[in-house]
Amino acid sequence: MRNSRRGEVDPFIVMDVMEAARQAEAAGRHIIHMEVGQPGTGAPREAVEKVAREMATGPMGYTVALGLPELRARIARHYGEWYNVDLDPARVVVTSGASGAFLLSFTQLFDTGARVGLGAPCYPSYRQILKALDMAPIDIATRLENRMQPVPGDVEAHALDGLVLASPSNPAGTMLDKDGIAALAEACAARDAALISDEIYHGIGGRGTSALEVTDETHVIGSFSKYFSMTGWRVGWLIVPPEHVRGIERIAQNMFICTSHASQRLALHAMDATGELEANAAVYAANRRLMLERLPRAGFTRFAPPDGAFYVYADVSAFTDDSRAFAAEILEEAGVAVTPGLDFDPAEGHRWIRFSYARSTADIEEGLERLTRFMAARGHAETGAA
Amino acid sequence: MRNSRRGEVDPFIVMDVMEAARQAEAAGRHIIHMEVGQPGTGAPREAVEKVAREMATGPMGYTVALGLPELRARIARHYGEWYNVDLDPARVVVTSGASGAFLLSFTQLFDTGARVGLGAPCYPSYRQILKALDMAPIDIATRLENRMQPVPGDVEAHALDGLVLASPSNPAGTMLDKDGIAALAEACAARDAALISDEIYHGIGGRGTSALEVTDETHVIGSFSKYFSMTGWRVGWLIVPPEHVRGIERIAQNMFICTSHASQRLALHAMDATGELEANAAVYAANRRLMLERLPRAGFTRFAPPDGAFYVYADVSAFTDDSRAFAAEILEEAGVAVTPGLDFDPAEGHRWIRFSYARSTADIEEGLERLTRFMAARGHAETGAA
Repeated sequence: MRNSRRGEVDPFIVMDVMEAARQAEAAGRHIIHMEVGQPGTGAPREAVEKVAREMATGPMGYTVALGLPELRARIARHYGEWYNVDLDPARVVVTSGASGAFLLSFTQLFDTGARVGLGAPCYPSYRQILKALDMAPIDIATRLENRMQPVPGDVEAHALDGLVLASPSNPAGTMLDKDGIAALAEACAARDAALISDEIYHGIGGRGTSALEVTDETHVIGSFSKYFSMTGWRVGWLIVPPEHVRGIERIAQNMFICTSHASQRLALHAMDATGELEANAAVYAANRRLMLERLPRAGFTRFAPPDGAFYVYADVSAFTDDSRAFAAEILEEAGVAVTPGLDFDPAEGHRWIRFSYARSTADIEEGLERLTRFMAARGHAETGAA
Repeated sequence: MRNSRRGEVDPFIVMDVMEAARQAEAAGRHIIHMEVGQPGTGAPREAVEKVAREMATGPMGYTVALGLPELRARIARHYGEWYNVDLDPARVVVTSGASGAFLLSFTQLFDTGARVGLGAPCYPSYRQILKALDMAPIDIATRLENRMQPVPGDVEAHALDGLVLASPSNPAGTMLDKDGIAALAEACAARDAALISDEIYHGIGGRGTSALEVTDETHVIGSFSKYFSMTGWRVGWLIVPPEHVRGIERIAQNMFICTSHASQRLALHAMDATGELEANAAVYAANRRLMLERLPRAGFTRFAPPDGAFYVYADVSAFTDDSRAFAAEILEEAGVAVTPGLDFDPAEGHRWIRFSYARSTADIEEGLERLTRFMAARGHAETGAA
């Protein structure tokens, strides 16, 4: 049967790591998971209890395409509380995860062949969704001294129609401040390139700066999967300029009808479960301190400053030119699953590794000890030298 | 801010009807809803209770992209039970509603500009999703004597790269039998056009015939929103040939990550709630009998045989050349909301109206009485003539 060219999406290399980890566990080994990009926690318990009660009484039929009005209003309020931004709820669109927001945003903004810049390394699905829509993802090489973020000159240099900014970045965890975002927004405006700001990790490692603090001429993407710990429920949001709302609504009506009704109710309740959410955030903060203290001692000294998210992206070129093989060795010898950089950056990822610290602090401590022993055995770790 | 051409999706005309109905209700009028395309019932109660218990204990994190293995196996079993088709669960993909299945299927099968045939009238989102993906939806005029379905000669005549078949059709409710589907499948195979079979209304008005009964070279799309009465939970499925599974998996990983975990669990439980589901189906059957008996008496005598789904699509050209104005009059004068045909068929829809009988039997009785009085006042109904 026929196949399209656009459907030829690259495989995730991390899937091989996860499958190898699964096989190792099936064979009785104990594996520490520093490869996963999702919280180990579920949705806030009090929010789950509320939605379970609602499910017992309401039919949970379709909602309107833009989302439940009370959830849109609550998200708008969140921008006031976190960023001191006065946001009209009419500009907030509830989406099927951040994934759904990217589909809507790219469709609304770009035509076939559009050149959309991605700061490499980046979340691999940007690249693949753009390819699946027959647009042109343009990898922009970034540098450690620029916090592994694109710089304003890239917009003109790569003749971009749009730029996806991720702050904090996955995999690097680096953030841009208000001035940094404003400079990129200005460069985009200068050539009518769209600025799409992925802010899905806000709240983990601090609230960050929203692109909405510097401009309304942007698409801002948020998610309930990280800080709000609702991964499997698939809810996110998209904030657009007022003149884009009608267009996004029509695309959403046709592509999604609506986001899961129960998931939207849960999201609404989760936004008020501050106690549980801040307790989760405190775990990430503790894990981050451990990582920053012990990774260098283990020998991983070169990485971008991980301001937020729950990742450290480390340059391992001193040890290997093949991060995939290196990750396989770490799994085999240390019993720690990590992600080779190739999914995030096809060009340079062969010399980078991503460590996730999304799991429990006990797991992270154990993982760091194992990594230190592994590196010591190779003569790289400080403790190995001691 | 910039806009794309592909994002210029047509508005739904039915939305104007729904908004007018809402305003009438807000003004204190009682409106019968024969415009809506969703069951009035919620998900089966026993299934909701089961998933509520599971939510209390499990984190409901991401599932694998293709869906929960037990749900995929259960859907495969369903094809054995309903159609006597032996289906490998590996070919079943759980999707974010049928909407998600269309995005995946079109992306896997077609490139930019591909000509994809739609039997007009049809579900409007086929057309809009194809446009949003920069493919070319090709409306194929259908005829009452062909049950308002495409015929094999259309595939070559329109130089199609693919054909979307809907049996039962929305809005016409007509079905094709095994021979009818086989003839279309053969015509598609003859020019390597992909056959996509939308079977989301199966179970309402009978189980219907699945394209899988005649060929494996097809994409079959199902849904939990109609027979299983789970609209707002957004779960559907897609069945593809074995050699397409890997490709669909990669697209799904990037576009969706996964379908809502709780929704998948609910779908699994709903498939065993046969008592509640068959009770719903009996209501649709009773409503259908009422419609077929009383619509002609009211003066609506020309419509396609509604084999399934919960719609009657009636030719109203004897009364109007402007179905939109006619629908507005029916709402204003009779207090019944109905859908003008324009969303389903831009060319011919100005002389057609869709009646939905998805609501309670009492509502349908009342709606039919109001329609009869409306038509009688215009000298069209039998009772008016009596």
